[in-house]
Amino acid sequence: MKAFAMLKIGETGWIEKDRPKCGPMDAIVRPIALAPCTSDVHTVWEGSVGDRHNLILGHEGVGEVVEVGELVKDFKPGDKVIVPAITPDWNSLEAQAGYSMHSGGMLNGWKFSNTKDGVFAEFFNVNDADGNLAHLPEGMDPATATMLSDMVPTGLHGCELANIEYGDKVCVIGIGPVGLMAVRGAYLRGASDLFAVGSRQNCIDIAKEYGATDIINYKNGSILEQVMEKTNGKGVDKVVIAGGDVDTFIEAVTMLKPGGTIGNINYLGDGEFVKIPRAEWGVGMGHKTIAGGLMPGGRLRMEKLADMVMKGRIDPSRLITHRFEGLDKVEEALMLMKDKPRDLIKPVVTIKW
Amino acid sequence: MKAFAMLKIGETGWIEKDRPKCGPMDAIVRPIALAPCTSDVHTVWEGSVGDRHNLILGHEGVGEVVEVGELVKDFKPGDKVIVPAITPDWNSLEAQAGYSMHSGGMLNGWKFSNTKDGVFAEFFNVNDADGNLAHLPEGMDPATATMLSDMVPTGLHGCELANIEYGDKVCVIGIGPVGLMAVRGAYLRGASDLFAVGSRQNCIDIAKEYGATDIINYKNGSILEQVMEKTNGKGVDKVVIAGGDVDTFIEAVTMLKPGGTIGNINYLGDGEFVKIPRAEWGVGMGHKTIAGGLMPGGRLRMEKLADMVMKGRIDPSRLITHRFEGLDKVEEALMLMKDKPRDLIKPVVTIKW
Amino acid sequence: MKAFAMLKIGETGWIEKDRPKCGPMDAIVRPIALAPCTSDVHTVWEGSVGDRHNLILGHEGVGEVVEVGELVKDFKPGDKVIVPAITPDWNSLEAQAGYSMHSGGMLNGWKFSNTKDGVFAEFFNVNDADGNLAHLPEGMDPATATMLSDMVPTGLHGCELANIEYGDKVCVIGIGPVGLMAVRGAYLRGASDLFAVGSRQNCIDIAKEYGATDIINYKNGSILEQVMEKTNGKGVDKVVIAGGDVDTFIEAVTMLKPGGTIGNINYLGDGEFVKIPRAEWGVGMGHKTIAGGLMPGGRLRMEKLADMVMKGRIDPSRLITHRFEGLDKVEEALMLMKDKPRDLIKPVVTIKW
Amino acid sequence: MKAFAMLKIGETGWIEKDRPKCGPMDAIVRPIALAPCTSDVHTVWEGSVGDRHNLILGHEGVGEVVEVGELVKDFKPGDKVIVPAITPDWNSLEAQAGYSMHSGGMLNGWKFSNTKDGVFAEFFNVNDADGNLAHLPEGMDPATATMLSDMVPTGLHGCELANIEYGDKVCVIGIGPVGLMAVRGAYLRGASDLFAVGSRQNCIDIAKEYGATDIINYKNGSILEQVMEKTNGKGVDKVVIAGGDVDTFIEAVTMLKPGGTIGNINYLGDGEFVKIPRAEWGVGMGHKTIAGGLMPGGRLRMEKLADMVMKGRIDPSRLITHRFEGLDKVEEALMLMKDKPRDLIKPVVTIKW
Repeated sequence: MKAFAMLKIGETGWIEKDRPKCGPMDAIVRPIALAPCTSDVHTVWEGSVGDRHNLILGHEGVGEVVEVGELVKDFKPGDKVIVPAITPDWNSLEAQAGYSMHSGGMLNGWKFSNTKDGVFAEFFNVNDADGNLAHLPEGMDPATATMLSDMVPTGLHGCELANIEYGDKVCVIGIGPVGLMAVRGAYLRGASDLFAVGSRQNCIDIAKEYGATDIINYKNGSILEQVMEKTNGKGVDKVVIAGGDVDTFIEAVTMLKPGGTIGNINYLGDGEFVKIPRAEWGVGMGHKTIAGGLMPGGRLRMEKLADMVMKGRIDPSRLITHRFEGLDKVEEALMLMKDKPRDLIKPVVTIKW
Repeated sequence: MKAFAMLKIGETGWIEKDRPKCGPMDAIVRPIALAPCTSDVHTVWEGSVGDRHNLILGHEGVGEVVEVGELVKDFKPGDKVIVPAITPDWNSLEAQAGYSMHSGGMLNGWKFSNTKDGVFAEFFNVNDADGNLAHLPEGMDPATATMLSDMVPTGLHGCELANIEYGDKVCVIGIGPVGLMAVRGAYLRGASDLFAVGSRQNCIDIAKEYGATDIINYKNGSILEQVMEKTNGKGVDKVVIAGGDVDTFIEAVTMLKPGGTIGNINYLGDGEFVKIPRAEWGVGMGHKTIAGGLMPGGRLRMEKLADMVMKGRIDPSRLITHRFEGLDKVEEALMLMKDKPRDLIKPVVTIKW
Repeated sequence: MKAFAMLKIGETGWIEKDRPKCGPMDAIVRPIALAPCTSDVHTVWEGSVGDRHNLILGHEGVGEVVEVGELVKDFKPGDKVIVPAITPDWNSLEAQAGYSMHSGGMLNGWKFSNTKDGVFAEFFNVNDADGNLAHLPEGMDPATATMLSDMVPTGLHGCELANIEYGDKVCVIGIGPVGLMAVRGAYLRGASDLFAVGSRQNCIDIAKEYGATDIINYKNGSILEQVMEKTNGKGVDKVVIAGGDVDTFIEAVTMLKPGGTIGNINYLGDGEFVKIPRAEWGVGMGHKTIAGGLMPGGRLRMEKLADMVMKGRIDPSRLITHRFEGLDKVEEALMLMKDKPRDLIKPVVTIKW
Repeated sequence: MKAFAMLKIGETGWIEKDRPKCGPMDAIVRPIALAPCTSDVHTVWEGSVGDRHNLILGHEGVGEVVEVGELVKDFKPGDKVIVPAITPDWNSLEAQAGYSMHSGGMLNGWKFSNTKDGVFAEFFNVNDADGNLAHLPEGMDPATATMLSDMVPTGLHGCELANIEYGDKVCVIGIGPVGLMAVRGAYLRGASDLFAVGSRQNCIDIAKEYGATDIINYKNGSILEQVMEKTNGKGVDKVVIAGGDVDTFIEAVTMLKPGGTIGNINYLGDGEFVKIPRAEWGVGMGHKTIAGGLMPGGRLRMEKLADMVMKGRIDPSRLITHRFEGLDKVEEALMLMKDKPRDLIKPVVTIKW
């Protein structure tokens, strides 16, 4: 079969690979909509997960089941399915402890385009189909549904990590696609003042639609100072970090009230240490909790988030700025993610077979 | 001063009383907007808190500070303030344990029109002004703000008790003013399917505006059966009880999935026992948690909820169906609550001095 | 193979059955230590889970693996294993939601001697061996280890449900084997005053060893009055219910402070409704949370609890009052559970092959 | 009156000051037992809270009430009382949010020897006596009770921050007096393996008495490597940091499993940034939560912890290695804390009037 792969660090290309085999609990799925992710860019051009050879890329997709293993009960060929980026081993000790995304080791619930072939291929394998696939709801656009693989659950998880509550003042740092979903997530946990840190106009527009009350643009000065000024020097109750780097925590900790929480969902690619400012962290005793975690995957999560979309609670279709048709266009879509033109939020490729 | 009081069980009337004294931590407030509550009706005509003689009624109000005690730091005469129905003793052991509404004993954070004179008077006393008053935000209509005393915090607390999470299917039983705020609260904690149980058209309309996806009307048959049918027999993740009686728990427990939670905010006036159906409760082991609690009061809560109103997250002005002018109209407003015409949700009395 | 079964409601006997088959994720285990449970008595003589025909009894056991399915990775023939009473389907939606004991439906994580053959046989099948078995730690007595199947996790879960915290005053109602483990569990969550309700001397002795500070004996008068007197009328912070019936909740709710929690782990066999006293429950608003749930099973739980035993945190061997040798003695052991002589806590049968 | 004070950074001495005045909610207390704290050493010789002039030192004490304000209800002259190091303003917004130790600003619940005169004097003032004092239980040694002011609540709070659960493997880094109480706290939340990091023999002995299963001595090599080896390379579920500096977090994060939590109770005196190792923190997504906070103070906490001592759950008297008699000996006791001889854990000064 044909697939688009990472050949080695810094290089991608189309390869031929055998169609994946279907284990007893697995499903083989043919993609009908795919989206590239910034993580794919990190993986290939920054080598962030180490070198890989002929590893098929992609972990955001919707498809049609073409084969299922003998132990699969709830899915059959022909079913349209949402595929989460994170596909845990549900009986692992980590999943039993409530951290399925770390099944088998830290971050190891992330398999596609990391430790196994991804979804940018004519066919791909899904481990534990009953536990990890969700039926595509009738009437949901497959392109929209690809946002459920990673963007929606990651953004909303930031708000869970930050433990946002009614009436909290919240700052979301970074309003790319994940940060925008965090803005929506903050609204849907009852934030009052909702500061969104970003500078691109299309993202700003959507942030406002999603519930942001104030846009903080670094071009207008220090984001810390702007937030402190807008809160009369008191700071915010909760922070979601969806962009930036290890230095971003300096501002995040400083703007946070004692008793507050930071929820980080940003992949930190560089730097030896995440920088927690000692004094502003209350010399260790300020009750400013720092949490960060990979999105929860699996079937239940996909079903619940899909239901939120169907009921109009979240509209992730707003994230899609570029649409392509045909599997061969995943290359162009990925290059867009790499080059990040200012009008890009997310590209989606739909595929007719 | 003139005040509207419960004379004894079953009887109300206008009385003359001395203006209340101001202790060192207290404030004396003159009302500018007042609302009667169904609890006032329970108190007078059902004697639900026991007999009372010449007890001034009312616990929902907004006013202007006219005097403060020597220890009060953050309020001064002339300040416009929101007054919560629940005014805890913040240094009590119960408040230190996180349950300020039970400061000094179960439900004893509820003082107005229960253990001390209420707000239906020319002046009323607020204990611990710094801890219990909130400044009325500039631009907020005092009539709307009276909904913050009880309706908004009680409704939203139901959703906290029920622990509503992203994508939960939620049933709110009862859509009077408190239940309607619970509907909004469920939306603002990320509910997907949101079943609102009620039958009055004006309430139904607002429930839909607030985020309800399905209206369950008892006139169309068993509410339990309707909910189970709409959930393919699986039931809901969470239930908020904002109406009904001790029998309501039978349906609530039955429609709840294992692992779910019931949040009760309904005053249960009658019956020896709340009825938890043994088998449907998993013979004691179904992980169907039953929680119920009085709203949290105090200043922080008022400030956070007022901020939510100012940012457009909740619009409690939609609850106000009847408006009156002049302190003497609180009697008429209360009688409306007693008689409950079908077009009533909440009456508000505004007062110019 | 030979097995001891429920023939029908009210009748038990030895039967011949085919040795169970081993699915791809399963293990076949030969028992080396077994314990009967009061639940077996309920199942047979009270028909509490409905009628069953030739259903092999027993769900507490330790054994030796004799066969594993092709997908099993961590266990092999010859391994000595602890078998939990609850063996969930870990990829079910309920398990993904954190309630594995209800996988596939309320209480359906309980399979042995309920929906599939139990462990009182020459061989038994364990579903999802990797997710549900735990290696017997070197040096742990298999008889002691049988207490890990159900008694220890159920007792400790009661303390988790009741959310016991440092310095809480706790009442454990019922000190049979599960209640005794709840006493130890309460001690190991930092209870200060620890009231144990029971009357049998051997149980009282162990309750004191485990950390009870006060014994409440119903023979000395109302348990409610005794607890209230010992707490100066203030009641307790948390209650664990490990005995009694639907009426027990009346006393439990009454002795509980506002803000407190009841954790029920008692199988409620009779009565239409669990009785929650309306007034003492704060007319629905007293923040007295009522939780109840089946123990969590699975491998991680077994491993963690076994580790607690190995480190001397809990000593469940103290529960074993009667010891037998040989599979054929499970009948006698079960009859002891049925007849409950006053010197009985738990009987264990060890088996040499 | 006579008092022992910080004269300026680096200098202490005896001074004369007016006896403090008693506000309406205050109490004036005469000390009967006092203990110096390492924080006093930081304050004076490291200037860690900034410069202070003639500030009376000391925040750990037990005393006798000699005067109360007119609003105080539960205490009267002659009462023996435990005084917490942290004495919040209970009606502050921060306390209402559940973070009383930060009432009025980060760490501002800590008043004694920080923002107001401390307890090393003939008399000292306690703000909000009803909310912050606790009656000394009959039969409790005042010297032992001084450990309740700070050592016990701080150590146990580390275990709350780390969210220790049944069967967790826990590492407590640092076994000075606070770390030792964290060891006991970990035991009393059900830790199984309990690694205590320290090297002084008297501390090691008490750590074992309190429940430590393994002593990790840095003299035997890297503490990280020792912990990883003892856990078969898997690490621990929870870490309490009660010693070390900003670099300690490197080892703590590395030894922590995904899904684990660090609870810091160590005052971090130096360094611009707390160092969170990026890769070992799961590149921001490892669900390794980092919490740190000042102990909760106030009356309820004191009462609950005192009850734990009375019931024999914790024995803080074991911490006291040096005893003195007479107020004038607080100087010698403080110098001991400064010089830290190897046989010192805590000195206590008792005072007869």
